[in-house]
Amino acid sequence: MTTATTTVGVIGLGSMGLGVAKTLCRAGFETWGFDVRDASVLELEQAGGHGASSPADLGRKVDVAIVLVATADQVRTVLFGEAGAAGTMHEGAVVIASATVPASAAIETGFQLSEHRILMIDGPVSGGVVGAESGNLSLMASGPDEAFVAAQSVLDAIASKVYRLGTAHGVGSTVKTINQLLAGVHIAASAEAMALGIRAGVDPKTLFEVISNSAGSSWMFNNRVPHILDGDYAPKSAVDIFVKDLGIVLETGKGLTFPLPLTATAHQQFLAASAGGLGRQDDSAVIKVFQKLTGIELPPEKDAS
Amino acid sequence: MTTATTTVGVIGLGSMGLGVAKTLCRAGFETWGFDVRDASVLELEQAGGHGASSPADLGRKVDVAIVLVATADQVRTVLFGEAGAAGTMHEGAVVIASATVPASAAIETGFQLSEHRILMIDGPVSGGVVGAESGNLSLMASGPDEAFVAAQSVLDAIASKVYRLGTAHGVGSTVKTINQLLAGVHIAASAEAMALGIRAGVDPKTLFEVISNSAGSSWMFNNRVPHILDGDYAPKSAVDIFVKDLGIVLETGKGLTFPLPLTATAHQQFLAASAGGLGRQDDSAVIKVFQKLTGIELPPEKDAS
Repeated sequence: MTTATTTVGVIGLGSMGLGVAKTLCRAGFETWGFDVRDASVLELEQAGGHGASSPADLGRKVDVAIVLVATADQVRTVLFGEAGAAGTMHEGAVVIASATVPASAAIETGFQLSEHRILMIDGPVSGGVVGAESGNLSLMASGPDEAFVAAQSVLDAIASKVYRLGTAHGVGSTVKTINQLLAGVHIAASAEAMALGIRAGVDPKTLFEVISNSAGSSWMFNNRVPHILDGDYAPKSAVDIFVKDLGIVLETGKGLTFPLPLTATAHQQFLAASAGGLGRQDDSAVIKVFQKLTGIELPPEKDAS
Repeated sequence: MTTATTTVGVIGLGSMGLGVAKTLCRAGFETWGFDVRDASVLELEQAGGHGASSPADLGRKVDVAIVLVATADQVRTVLFGEAGAAGTMHEGAVVIASATVPASAAIETGFQLSEHRILMIDGPVSGGVVGAESGNLSLMASGPDEAFVAAQSVLDAIASKVYRLGTAHGVGSTVKTINQLLAGVHIAASAEAMALGIRAGVDPKTLFEVISNSAGSSWMFNNRVPHILDGDYAPKSAVDIFVKDLGIVLETGKGLTFPLPLTATAHQQFLAASAGGLGRQDDSAVIKVFQKLTGIELPPEKDAS
């Protein structure tokens, strides 16, 4: 298939899905989108895409459907619900399942799709909104070779790196789960470190400059602490996403009877932030748990956008 | 002062101190060293340095003394003990205090040295043995300007980056403490993530390749996980160093009445490793806590060196 002949759809037009859909429009694909929020569909149409009235409507039109909803339940609904896409997609069509879900759910989805003779790539993404909007996502992807062949042009457009993790469903989601373990612990650790530094009287900008160039640095420290320094908690990725994602990590551990003490502790910090009304703010707002408890003075906050 | 006229000493010839001392020899400094272990002193002498018989003996000979012992107690002993260097160093000489110690200890040491009219740089280092041996350490340094002027040529030789964190003692050690908070949490999180991946059946090399290029990466993940993949637990930095350093972080939090849940959890993991007889192994051996508990199969281990 080529750009000219592959029609593609995105189910779930949140910040990630909308970014991916716009990238596909820009790359010349006939691009369909579905979301329960009309405003998101409208934004896609303004970017040159087409709004579908339901996942089933979308499924009828596309060769490749990228699912970028938030939860495993939503994946089940948009694929296998009353107006689900699986009932209308043609034989040999491909679902790229990119929501962060437990590996067990990815395996189940792949099995159900195969009963419809639809191929699946278990392909969660990394790279955030910036990666989605620029076609530079990373995919942690497993699934049958023919799915990768059929979706090649779409993958080329949305991702700068596709990690092929074998042909079995579940591996992509497992690797993503482990990435989220680290990402979540690192965001919570960044908050703990910056909060302690502020309490100890160190200038937070200086602290960031030193640590971001030292052995204490992490991708998340370098990416999220500037949000704190700028007082900008407009959600690039929200606190509640990590309540969910670290929840998936802990469920995975429980399913394997495997202890995850740091994950459990970081999950509690995100839960505490969400309990404090911060669930919809940027995940860097987890530092405000320390502010609420101890009254430390964070850099002045921008007006909420 | 110039290379030709500044005489320098290193107190504590562990892997870090010996690396620094050899770097100074190579840079053309008359370099003295002291350690309780004769083998380390011999190694310095073979590299062109001179062995001192005590810290006091060393203090008599040098303009700048770098203290690279392990603990705050050892710092007190080598500077102010019976054969301490503070009693013999000349007025206006400089101590670069590079051990990782609580900020309160650094402030106390600076005050005591000032009574001897000796200048101090509160200057913990980052960069590991590789940085020490190549003259590429980072210094997180605070102290009076005249100390930095007097020690300039020495700092140029041992460090590629000197963060000047103001004139007050304690700031350098606070920033280092916060760096160690993150470094320790990241090593323990790396172990937790790799252990879960192995338990879930993901190939550990593939997992490392994906995560090290993704948002879950950290300096420590990228640096330490290869030790696990290589089965090489010869200590570049030992488990017990993080038992100590995260202990300092927790003491700092306690002193400021500040909760540090992730630090506390990571500290328990290093304690568990040490309890399991792994204290002298590389800090990446903290993953063996999961192996001992769950029987996961780690990559085959090299013969201990």
